[in-house]
Amino acid sequence: MSRRMAAFGEVMMRLQVPGYELLKQANTLQYSFSGTGVNVLAALSHFGHKGYLVSALPPNALGDAAVSYLRKLGIEDTYVSRCGHEVGMYFLENGFGARPSRVTYANRSLSSFNTASTKTFDLPHIIKNVEVIHFCGIALAMNTQVRKTMITLGEMAKEKGCMVVFDCNYRPLLWGDNGHEKARPYYEQLLHLADIVIMNEKDAIHTLKMETTKMELDDQIKELMTIVAEKYQISVIAGTNRKIESHDKHTLRGFIHRNKKTVFSSIRTFPVFDRIGSGDAFSSGIIHGVVKGFDSRTTVEFATVASMLAHSVVGDTPVSTENDIVKVMEGTIGDIER
Amino acid sequence: MSRRMAAFGEVMMRLQVPGYELLKQANTLQYSFSGTGVNVLAALSHFGHKGYLVSALPPNALGDAAVSYLRKLGIEDTYVSRCGHEVGMYFLENGFGARPSRVTYANRSLSSFNTASTKTFDLPHIIKNVEVIHFCGIALAMNTQVRKTMITLGEMAKEKGCMVVFDCNYRPLLWGDNGHEKARPYYEQLLHLADIVIMNEKDAIHTLKMETTKMELDDQIKELMTIVAEKYQISVIAGTNRKIESHDKHTLRGFIHRNKKTVFSSIRTFPVFDRIGSGDAFSSGIIHGVVKGFDSRTTVEFATVASMLAHSVVGDTPVSTENDIVKVMEGTIGDIER
Amino acid sequence: MSRRMAAFGEVMMRLQVPGYELLKQANTLQYSFSGTGVNVLAALSHFGHKGYLVSALPPNALGDAAVSYLRKLGIEDTYVSRCGHEVGMYFLENGFGARPSRVTYANRSLSSFNTASTKTFDLPHIIKNVEVIHFCGIALAMNTQVRKTMITLGEMAKEKGCMVVFDCNYRPLLWGDNGHEKARPYYEQLLHLADIVIMNEKDAIHTLKMETTKMELDDQIKELMTIVAEKYQISVIAGTNRKIESHDKHTLRGFIHRNKKTVFSSIRTFPVFDRIGSGDAFSSGIIHGVVKGFDSRTTVEFATVASMLAHSVVGDTPVSTENDIVKVMEGTIGDIER
Amino acid sequence: MSRRMAAFGEVMMRLQVPGYELLKQANTLQYSFSGTGVNVLAALSHFGHKGYLVSALPPNALGDAAVSYLRKLGIEDTYVSRCGHEVGMYFLENGFGARPSRVTYANRSLSSFNTASTKTFDLPHIIKNVEVIHFCGIALAMNTQVRKTMITLGEMAKEKGCMVVFDCNYRPLLWGDNGHEKARPYYEQLLHLADIVIMNEKDAIHTLKMETTKMELDDQIKELMTIVAEKYQISVIAGTNRKIESHDKHTLRGFIHRNKKTVFSSIRTFPVFDRIGSGDAFSSGIIHGVVKGFDSRTTVEFATVASMLAHSVVGDTPVSTENDIVKVMEGTIGDIER
Amino acid sequence: MSRRMAAFGEVMMRLQVPGYELLKQANTLQYSFSGTGVNVLAALSHFGHKGYLVSALPPNALGDAAVSYLRKLGIEDTYVSRCGHEVGMYFLENGFGARPSRVTYANRSLSSFNTASTKTFDLPHIIKNVEVIHFCGIALAMNTQVRKTMITLGEMAKEKGCMVVFDCNYRPLLWGDNGHEKARPYYEQLLHLADIVIMNEKDAIHTLKMETTKMELDDQIKELMTIVAEKYQISVIAGTNRKIESHDKHTLRGFIHRNKKTVFSSIRTFPVFDRIGSGDAFSSGIIHGVVKGFDSRTTVEFATVASMLAHSVVGDTPVSTENDIVKVMEGTIGDIER
Amino acid sequence: MSRRMAAFGEVMMRLQVPGYELLKQANTLQYSFSGTGVNVLAALSHFGHKGYLVSALPPNALGDAAVSYLRKLGIEDTYVSRCGHEVGMYFLENGFGARPSRVTYANRSLSSFNTASTKTFDLPHIIKNVEVIHFCGIALAMNTQVRKTMITLGEMAKEKGCMVVFDCNYRPLLWGDNGHEKARPYYEQLLHLADIVIMNEKDAIHTLKMETTKMELDDQIKELMTIVAEKYQISVIAGTNRKIESHDKHTLRGFIHRNKKTVFSSIRTFPVFDRIGSGDAFSSGIIHGVVKGFDSRTTVEFATVASMLAHSVVGDTPVSTENDIVKVMEGTIGDIER
Repeated sequence: MSRRMAAFGEVMMRLQVPGYELLKQANTLQYSFSGTGVNVLAALSHFGHKGYLVSALPPNALGDAAVSYLRKLGIEDTYVSRCGHEVGMYFLENGFGARPSRVTYANRSLSSFNTASTKTFDLPHIIKNVEVIHFCGIALAMNTQVRKTMITLGEMAKEKGCMVVFDCNYRPLLWGDNGHEKARPYYEQLLHLADIVIMNEKDAIHTLKMETTKMELDDQIKELMTIVAEKYQISVIAGTNRKIESHDKHTLRGFIHRNKKTVFSSIRTFPVFDRIGSGDAFSSGIIHGVVKGFDSRTTVEFATVASMLAHSVVGDTPVSTENDIVKVMEGTIGDIER
Repeated sequence: MSRRMAAFGEVMMRLQVPGYELLKQANTLQYSFSGTGVNVLAALSHFGHKGYLVSALPPNALGDAAVSYLRKLGIEDTYVSRCGHEVGMYFLENGFGARPSRVTYANRSLSSFNTASTKTFDLPHIIKNVEVIHFCGIALAMNTQVRKTMITLGEMAKEKGCMVVFDCNYRPLLWGDNGHEKARPYYEQLLHLADIVIMNEKDAIHTLKMETTKMELDDQIKELMTIVAEKYQISVIAGTNRKIESHDKHTLRGFIHRNKKTVFSSIRTFPVFDRIGSGDAFSSGIIHGVVKGFDSRTTVEFATVASMLAHSVVGDTPVSTENDIVKVMEGTIGDIER
Repeated sequence: MSRRMAAFGEVMMRLQVPGYELLKQANTLQYSFSGTGVNVLAALSHFGHKGYLVSALPPNALGDAAVSYLRKLGIEDTYVSRCGHEVGMYFLENGFGARPSRVTYANRSLSSFNTASTKTFDLPHIIKNVEVIHFCGIALAMNTQVRKTMITLGEMAKEKGCMVVFDCNYRPLLWGDNGHEKARPYYEQLLHLADIVIMNEKDAIHTLKMETTKMELDDQIKELMTIVAEKYQISVIAGTNRKIESHDKHTLRGFIHRNKKTVFSSIRTFPVFDRIGSGDAFSSGIIHGVVKGFDSRTTVEFATVASMLAHSVVGDTPVSTENDIVKVMEGTIGDIER
Repeated sequence: MSRRMAAFGEVMMRLQVPGYELLKQANTLQYSFSGTGVNVLAALSHFGHKGYLVSALPPNALGDAAVSYLRKLGIEDTYVSRCGHEVGMYFLENGFGARPSRVTYANRSLSSFNTASTKTFDLPHIIKNVEVIHFCGIALAMNTQVRKTMITLGEMAKEKGCMVVFDCNYRPLLWGDNGHEKARPYYEQLLHLADIVIMNEKDAIHTLKMETTKMELDDQIKELMTIVAEKYQISVIAGTNRKIESHDKHTLRGFIHRNKKTVFSSIRTFPVFDRIGSGDAFSSGIIHGVVKGFDSRTTVEFATVASMLAHSVVGDTPVSTENDIVKVMEGTIGDIER
Repeated sequence: MSRRMAAFGEVMMRLQVPGYELLKQANTLQYSFSGTGVNVLAALSHFGHKGYLVSALPPNALGDAAVSYLRKLGIEDTYVSRCGHEVGMYFLENGFGARPSRVTYANRSLSSFNTASTKTFDLPHIIKNVEVIHFCGIALAMNTQVRKTMITLGEMAKEKGCMVVFDCNYRPLLWGDNGHEKARPYYEQLLHLADIVIMNEKDAIHTLKMETTKMELDDQIKELMTIVAEKYQISVIAGTNRKIESHDKHTLRGFIHRNKKTVFSSIRTFPVFDRIGSGDAFSSGIIHGVVKGFDSRTTVEFATVASMLAHSVVGDTPVSTENDIVKVMEGTIGDIER
Repeated sequence: MSRRMAAFGEVMMRLQVPGYELLKQANTLQYSFSGTGVNVLAALSHFGHKGYLVSALPPNALGDAAVSYLRKLGIEDTYVSRCGHEVGMYFLENGFGARPSRVTYANRSLSSFNTASTKTFDLPHIIKNVEVIHFCGIALAMNTQVRKTMITLGEMAKEKGCMVVFDCNYRPLLWGDNGHEKARPYYEQLLHLADIVIMNEKDAIHTLKMETTKMELDDQIKELMTIVAEKYQISVIAGTNRKIESHDKHTLRGFIHRNKKTVFSSIRTFPVFDRIGSGDAFSSGIIHGVVKGFDSRTTVEFATVASMLAHSVVGDTPVSTENDIVKVMEGTIGDIER
C-alpha cells in the first residue's frame, strides 16, 4: 500500500562544524541538504512510499549537489524546478553541556525557492500525480510569493481530494515582532484546507489565540484540539510535548486527536544525538499511520518512536524503516546482534 | 615469568563507519583486524607474554595488511599461513540511544582460515614451542574442516601437556536452528581437552543441557560450574554476567570456579565505548592470573577490570597493560595526571 | 529526446585507500559503488536520459548503501532486486610513478548478482519499459547462471526491437587459461544480438580469432571492423586505442565504424586522475551520439572527450554533462572562470 | 622600515571541496576567508608591514570566524566594522586536466561589506593612521554605495598624502554586458587618485579604450603604459602577462613602468597548486619594492617570484616571507634541507 | 572599559590524538598552542580587553605556527620574543570511563621560554603599556632563570602600580620530592607582589604550611583566606573546589575573599568535554569581575560559569564572551535557537 | 636464505603536515616513526630477512607508539631499550614547485637514543645473534656517547665476523662549521671496520679529503672508489648520483665497486612522491644483493630500482618486496591489472 506523496518546501544546505568546535575554531564543514519537506518525504520513502518534493533550486553546482542528495535520500526530484540563483543555508555549531547549539542562517531571502513564482511549478500535474501533500508553517513565514504558491496548491489539492497535511511549525524569528498576529490569517487559511494537522496546545493558544479553561497539560490538549478540529474541520490532529532534561537527554510524548478522542503515547526519555528534524519524523509517522490505517494508539506510538529514533541519527533527515521503529516499539535495549 | 602462548582462530577485517552514520549515509570506513584469538593474544602480549596466532590469510594486499596489523598489536605471525583467497569481514555501524549497533558480516564462508586444511599448519612445531593454547567456540561453529584442525591441535596440546583454554563463546547465528544440539558434541570434545574454560550458566544450561535446581543466579553458577568442572575435569572455569543498563552503560560481574570454590568479583558499572572484544579481555585476564599464580579473588577482579577497560578503548582489541589494570583495581576516578 | 535505457550488470563496492598509501600502511577506506552498467547509466543520466539498472543486491546494510549510491548517481533502482547475501568488492591502492595501482578483488563469486536466478528479474516488464539495453563482457565471464539471464534478456530485447549495446570488455583474469576459447561462443551469441558494439582490433583478433592482412593499426581496425559488422550484422562498432605515456599521462583515440565507413577521432593526450570507468564513458558517449543522431565524426569525438574527462574525475563513474563535453570539444584550456 | 598600510575590500568565505570531487560527489568543505584586500595585506604583513583591513562583517558566528582568520593571517582588524547580516561566499571545485576549476558565488549581493554605508567606517581615523592604501577593481564593480565609500576614502588619502594603490582587476561577470563602458568612468576616477597602478595592456585597451600602434606585446605594453602614466599622472604601473601552458603549468612575466621606463622580469614557468590570489601576491611585491626603494628590476623580479610562489601555497592568501622570495630569486631548485 | 593586560608564561604545543585512540593506535594528531598565560589572555580578549603575551618562541616554523595561533585567539604578539630553538609540547590521549586521560610532556626543558634570559624581554616597555599583569605557579616551577624574570617583572609592575595577578597553580610533578618546601619561598615572593591571587585551601595548607582549626571546608577556606590576605596584603583571593563525579561529570564551586568577606558561588554540576584550561577561565572571570567593578557575588558566579563553560569547548583555551556567560548565569538549558 | 640483520640508529618521530599546507596554516599532523636503521631494516624485512633494531626509546606513550610502529614495519624490537625521556622529532612541510619542502627538527639532543650509555645495550647478545650489522653517519654526528657505542659495537662485530655495513650519510647541519674536519677521524674508524660502504665521490673528496685527477664524474667515481676500497680494505662500495630535474622529478644512477671493478646502473628518471628514506632503500638493495650473491650489475640495478620505488611510497620507509622490484626491473609501465 505504497502511496504517492508530495511536500512543498525549501531545500536548505546544512553546513555543520564537525565535533564540538565553533566556526571560529574549525576549518572544515560537513554539508548535507534538508528542510521540513525533505525530511518528511525521506522518512516516508523509508516506509515504502514514493515522495515527490515540490521545490526550486538554482541551475548551478550547489543545486546539482542538492538534487543528488535528495535522490540519495530516496526522494523523487521530478518537481524540483531548477531556477533562480541561490540556496538557503544554515551553519550549525554543536553545543555541549551548558553551551547551546547555535544555528546561523545565511542567504535565505534570495533563495530559488523563496523567489520562485507560482507558475514555476506545474501544479496541475503534481496534483494529478499524488495522493497526499504536505505543507509547513516555515514556508508560510517566507514571503507573499511563497504563501501564494502554497495556498494555490493547497486549494487545488483540496478540490481534487488529495489528503492535505499541515505542520504548524511556528518559527518566532521568521515572523518577527507581533508574529502571531501576522501569522494567524495564513495559518487559518491552511487549517481550513488541511486533513491532518501537526500542532500542539501552544499553537492553539498563541497562533490561533484560543483559550483554555484547564490547568493540566493533558486537559488543555484535549480541550483545545477538540475546538481546533471542530472549527477547521480537521480529521486528525497530532503533536508532541518535549521536555529538555539536559543538553543531551530529552523527554517526548506524542498525542493524536481523531474522532473526538485524544490518545497519548507512552513517555519516552532518551539521549539526543541530533535534535533537528525529529519533529518531521513525528509528522511522517502520523501520516504513515493514518494512511496504513493504524489505530490511534499505534499511530501515535509509531510516530513518537520514529521521532525518538530521529534523535539518534546523523543529520536532519530520518532514516529509520518501519521495521526499525516496530522493533523499538516492541523491544528493550539489547546487546549487539551478531 | 613471560609465557609463550598460542591461539587458533580467524583474523577478521573490521570495517567501521566512523561516528554515528549508517553505511548508506557515509563514504569512509576505518579498518582494523581482529578476532577472538587476535584479541586474547594482543591482551596477553600487553601483560608481557609472547603470543603466536595460528591462522591463515591470503597472500594478497589484504593479507599483508592483516599481518602488519597483528604485528603492531604485539602478536607473532610465525604461524600465520599465507594461503587461500579471501578475508572474512564485518561492517560495523555504531548505534546510539535506542538505535542499536549493527554488524553486517561479509565474505566469511570462503575465507583463507575457513578453507585451510589441517596440514596447512605445522602443528607439531607449534605444540613444541608454546605452553598455553587458546580455542574459541566461534571457530568451532565454522565447518568440519576447521573443527578437525581445532580438535587435532587440542589433542596434541593435551598430550604434550600444554595448558588448553577453551572459550565457549556460543554464537546463535552461526549454528542456526537447533544450534545447541548441533554444537553440543563438539563443545564436549573441547571441554574434555580443556584446563581453563570461559563460560557461564547459560552455556551449561543451553549448550550442555544441564539443569539447575536453584533460583538465584549465584547459586545456579555455583551449582552448574561444580558439575561442569567435575564432569569434564576442568581446573578453572570463569565467566561473566553482563547487564545492559542502557545503550552506553553496562554492568559486569565476573566469577571464577577453582578447587570446588566459586569466587565472584565486585560489580562494575561503567560507560561503554566499544563493547566488541571485551569478553576476550576477560579471558586474557583469567589466563594471566592463572599463569602468574594470582589467587582466585585477584584473578577474577583482574579479569573483570581488564574487561571493563576493554570497553573504553577504540577497536575490538584490548590494549591495557597489567599496570593500567592494577591502577584501576586499586584506585578511584581521578583528574588528569600532569 | 530523453530515452529510457537499461543496463544489466553487477554493482561492486569500491574500497579505495585514500592518497597513495598501501592497505598495510593506511587505516581508512573511501567507498563507493560502481560497475560497467552503473557507470554507463550514470553517464547517460548526465546526458538527460533515464537509466534503469538491472541488478541484484542483498537486503542488508551494504545493499541499502549501494542503492542510495545508485540513486545519488541519477540511476533508477526499480529493477534492482534485493536478494542474496553478498556484494562483490574491490580494494584499490593508488599507484605512483613506477609503482602501479593495485586492485584486489574480494567476495565476488557469491555476490547477489552472481547468484541470482533469471526469474529474479521481471524481464518482460523491463523490456516493455526501455528503448536501449546495455550488456558487458565482464558479466559474461561470471558463470552459467549470469550468462543465461544475459542472453535471455538480450533475445527478448532483440525481439521487441530494443537497441542492444554490447561492450566486449574482455577481462583475462576472469576467463583464466585459454580464456579466449572459452569466451568466444558467448561473445558470438551477444554479437548476433547487438546493434551497437564496443570493441577494438584486439577483441577481433583474440576473442573472435579473426585475422588481418594489414600492418598499420588504422588499416587493421578498418579491415576487422568491416568484417565484424558484416558477419554479425552490427550497425555501429566503436572503440578506443590507448597508449600509456607514463603513470599519469595517457593518449586516447576513438573510432567508429558505421555504414561501412570507419571514422577516427582526434588524438587526445591528457593527465590521468582515475582511469577506472573511462571506457564506460566512451560507451555512453557512443550511445548518446547514436540516439541523438550525431554524425559519426561528432559521435566519436564526443565519446572520446567523454572518456578523457572521465579520467579527470574522482571515482569510477563519469559525471560530465553534455555541455561539459561540448565545451572541451570546442575549447582550449583556460583560466578559472569567475 | 615597516609601514602601516590599509586595504579596502570585501572579506569572502571560500568553501572548497577537498581533493578533486565535485560538490555533488563530496560531503565536506574546507573553509577560509580571503579577498583582494585580505590577500595583499597578509602578504605585506609577511614582509614586515602592519596591514589594516577596511571592511565589514556581520556580528555573528561567521563574522567571528572571519575576524579570527584575518588575525591569524597577521592582519589587524581594527577597521573591520561588525554590521549587516551576510558574508559573501564562493564555492570552489578543483579542476583536473581538461576539466576546469569551477567557482560558484553565493550570497554576495547582501553581504555586510556591500550593504555598509560610507559612515560605517571611521575614514578620518584610518587616513590618519596609515601611509599606504590599496583599492581594487572588484570592489568598484559592486554597487553605487561601495563605489562612493571607495572614492571618498581615495580622495581623503590623496589629500593627506597617503600612497594610493589601485589594482584594476576587471571582472567581466560582475560588470555584465557592455561592462567596459560602465566601468570606465569609475576606473578613471581611481586612476586619477592612484600612485601605483596594477594593470596590463588589456585594461588599457578595453577598459580605458586606448589604442596601440604596435604589434608586439612588449611594444604594446611600453607604449600603453607610457600613455596611461602620463594621462593619469601615475608614478608606478606594473602588471603581468600569464600564459596557461596546461591545467597545472603556467608561465608568468611581470613588468613595471616607472620614470618613463618599462622593465620586464625574467619569464617564469612553474607548476600550479592554487592560482587564486596570485595576482594579489604580485601587487604586494610591487608595493613592498616601491616602499623599500628597490630598483625597478629588483622590484618586478621580487613581485613576479612572489606571485609564482603564491601558486604553490594552499589557499588564496600568500604566505611567503621576503626571505623565501629572495632565496628563490637567487637560487635553483634544491633537495630537502635538513 | 577595555583594559590592557599582560601575562607572562610559556606557550606550549598541544598535540592531541583525535577521538579515543591511544598514540600507539592512531596516526594523526590535532595541534594547537596554549598555556596558562595564553588561556587567560584569550579569555580576557573575549571579554573585550587587549591581551599581550610575554613569552618566547623559536624563529622557525613551529614558532610561526604558534604566533599565528595566538593571534587567531585574539592575543597581541608584540612581546613574544623570537629566540631559542625549541617549543615545549604535550601529547594528550583522551580517557574514557575508567581509563584516564594521559598527558605526555616532551621537550620542555630546552624550550625558548625556559632558556630565555631576562633581558630578552623589554620589561620597561611592557610595564609602561599594561594595567594588569598575570603570573602563574607553573612558570615559577621551571628554573632559576624563569623565576628571575618573573620576579623582576613582578617587582617592576608593583612599583609602577600595575594590578598583579598570581595564580598559585602548584604542579607536584614539576617541583618533585619535597616540592612544597622548595616552592614556598618563591610563592611567598609572588604573594607579596600580588593584588589578586588564585588559590584554594590546599595551597594555604601545603605550600604556605598554614594550619586550620576548622573541620568544614567552608570554614577552612574562610579562615585560611583571611590569614593569607592579611599576611601578604592581598586585595582579592579567589579559587575553586572541584569534585570529580565521574569521568565526564564534574562539580565546581568558586569562592572569592575580599574586604575580609568570603563569598561562595552556587554549585555547578556539568558534563565535561575538555577539562584542561578551565582553571584559567576562572582566573579570567575573576580578573574581569574585579576590573569591571562587579560585586563579589557576581564576580564569583561569573568566574565559575566561565570555568564551567570552558569545560564544554574544544581545546585548552576559553572562547566564551561575556554575553555567553551572562546568558548561562541567567538561564536554563534550552532547545536550539533558530 | 633469510639472514638475521641488525642496525644501530635513532628512531625519530616524523610529524608531517598533510597535503601542502604550512604548519602555520594547518591543524593536523600525520605521524610515523623512521630513521636510517628503521628504514634499512624494514626494507630488508620486505626482502625476507629478519631485522633487529638496536636503539633506545622512552618508557612512555611515545615510546610505546614507536615500538608498535616498528613492529608493524616488520622489525624486531628485541634490542630496543626502553629508557630515557624523549623522542627526537622532525616536522615536515611538503614543498610544491619552487617552494621547497621544509624540515624542522625538535627535541633531538635529549632523546633516549642520544643519551643512552653503551651498557644500555646487551652488545654481546646482539653480536651473537646477527650476521649483518648496519651503521650510519648520522648517528656518528650525534655526540661522544653515541660514537662510543657505535664503535664498540662495530669492533665487536668485526671481531666476530659479522658483515659490517656503513652508510656515510654526511649531514652538514649536524657537524656544523668545519664539519668535514671534525667528522673525518670517526668516519675513518668506521671505514676500517666496514665490509660494505655506501658513499659517493663527494664523501671521498670532502670527508676523506681525497683528490681526483679526473674531470668526468664516472672516472672520478672509479678512481676514488678504488682508492677508498684499497685504503680501508672494503669489499663493496656503492652509491648513487642524483639529479634534481624539478620539484617532482629526479634522476638517479647507482654504482657499485667490487673486486676493483665499478659497475653503473642504468639511469632512472621518475616522479617523486616522498624523497626521504630513498637512500636507505638503495642501501638495503645493495645489502640484499650481496647477501643473495647477485652479480654486480644485478645488485646495482636492484638497489637503484629499490630506491626509485621508495620515492613513490608514502613515508620514509621503503615497503617494496623483492618481487615488486624485479617486476619494475623487467617491465614497462602498464595499465591497472585487474
